[in-house]
Amino acid sequence: MGTTQLETVPEPKYWHLKTVLSEALDSDFSVGEILPNERELAARFGVARATLRQALEQLELEGRLQRRRGVGTTVAPPRMGVDVGTSQHTWPGTPGDSWKPADCTTALAPAAVSRMLGTGLQEPLHTVRRIRVSHGQPVAAELLYVPAASVPELPAIEAPSGPARARSVLRELQRLGLESQDRAVELGSARADDAKELDRLPGAPVLVVTTRYFAAGRTAAVSIATYRADTCRLTFGDSGDLEISHHGPTAQAS
Amino acid sequence: MGTTQLETVPEPKYWHLKTVLSEALDSDFSVGEILPNERELAARFGVARATLRQALEQLELEGRLQRRRGVGTTVAPPRMGVDVGTSQHTWPGTPGDSWKPADCTTALAPAAVSRMLGTGLQEPLHTVRRIRVSHGQPVAAELLYVPAASVPELPAIEAPSGPARARSVLRELQRLGLESQDRAVELGSARADDAKELDRLPGAPVLVVTTRYFAAGRTAAVSIATYRADTCRLTFGDSGDLEISHHGPTAQAS
Repeated sequence: MGTTQLETVPEPKYWHLKTVLSEALDSDFSVGEILPNERELAARFGVARATLRQALEQLELEGRLQRRRGVGTTVAPPRMGVDVGTSQHTWPGTPGDSWKPADCTTALAPAAVSRMLGTGLQEPLHTVRRIRVSHGQPVAAELLYVPAASVPELPAIEAPSGPARARSVLRELQRLGLESQDRAVELGSARADDAKELDRLPGAPVLVVTTRYFAAGRTAAVSIATYRADTCRLTFGDSGDLEISHHGPTAQAS
Repeated sequence: MGTTQLETVPEPKYWHLKTVLSEALDSDFSVGEILPNERELAARFGVARATLRQALEQLELEGRLQRRRGVGTTVAPPRMGVDVGTSQHTWPGTPGDSWKPADCTTALAPAAVSRMLGTGLQEPLHTVRRIRVSHGQPVAAELLYVPAASVPELPAIEAPSGPARARSVLRELQRLGLESQDRAVELGSARADDAKELDRLPGAPVLVVTTRYFAAGRTAAVSIATYRADTCRLTFGDSGDLEISHHGPTAQAS
């Protein structure tokens, strides 16, 4: 990890520094290793602290570094490929599903969700909370919104909340014939409750996956899933049986 | 947009403020409208400037606000749904494709791309640069990496670079039988060249879509496309003919 002639390069300094640092991470550091402190790094590369900090921020956004309070800056493991393809055409909660039901409440939905479902803003919806675990880590938290009309025979006598209630809602939903589903991915910031489940700070950048489930000619349920953006890359395979890692050989080792 | 009793709420102040502001954006502001300055907003909601700034940052990350130098903070239009589904099984550059070839060079690929293609780190690849325009705005910039082995009959006599060369590489690629493709989405930061094309600052958060094209039993090409995270939500339809907006009725107007 020698110094390079940063002066002669036309691109922004922090950008070139980022590239140099990225190469150094590949060659001189291993996953989990703690980087030297900012002062030392700035001196080593002959750049101002502000330039260094910009480069470190970029590398954090790209998932190469993790900065944790009390630990410092460490080399991040490669992002996990987490499959979010729609090729399976199944309801949430069917066998093989990687989500764990955590809770179910009856609550008002955000305006955007009500619009997608065509329900009134004041209409409480069954709200199933689920957590997705991959390689032993929680990678995503989900709220699945189900209007009462989609689960008309939901037994009222069962537990009013909790995982048992969640499973009951999912079971009733599966009685409907699923016609199709679609999915969208966008950038968001972690809500306080999701952040806690995902071991992130509130407001951390997350990837928000919105899924609409269509049955009986209408939107029968909407899922809003929040994925950690630092550790996950969302994969969309071409077919259900195509199991491919999106990382190169080096990633396999982690 | 009245004040609310921020003191009595258990969640972080900026978070609650964000929710209140978000509702105010829906009810009291229209798209493109400039928000009052920070001092005025902080006074109106009875919060510290730092709290306000945190809330504004969150809303920017969520695509509700845009902050531009010299303009101030404006209400962002709803994000555009941009289809990135893999259901069509076509090579890049086939008719109906929403990408415009801009250039083609021969260059070394990033290490991660070489790994995916199984090419040597020192092997120069045809690198096609394309821009995707949606609703009159550039929404994404792409680098498509094509090893020489995938386009063995590429006429050497044609232009060595530029859009003509790009079209020539795409045409040769289409001679191969496309077996399958897969796609991954992750968070990234805009490179300086992409940022310029997309009218963003270098380092701005972007959604990076990596596509691998498989033909003749191997990875024949790799595309790395950088989408604006502030204006785009990436949609993955269930089927090619399902044309659905992911926004509610209010979004249709924009």
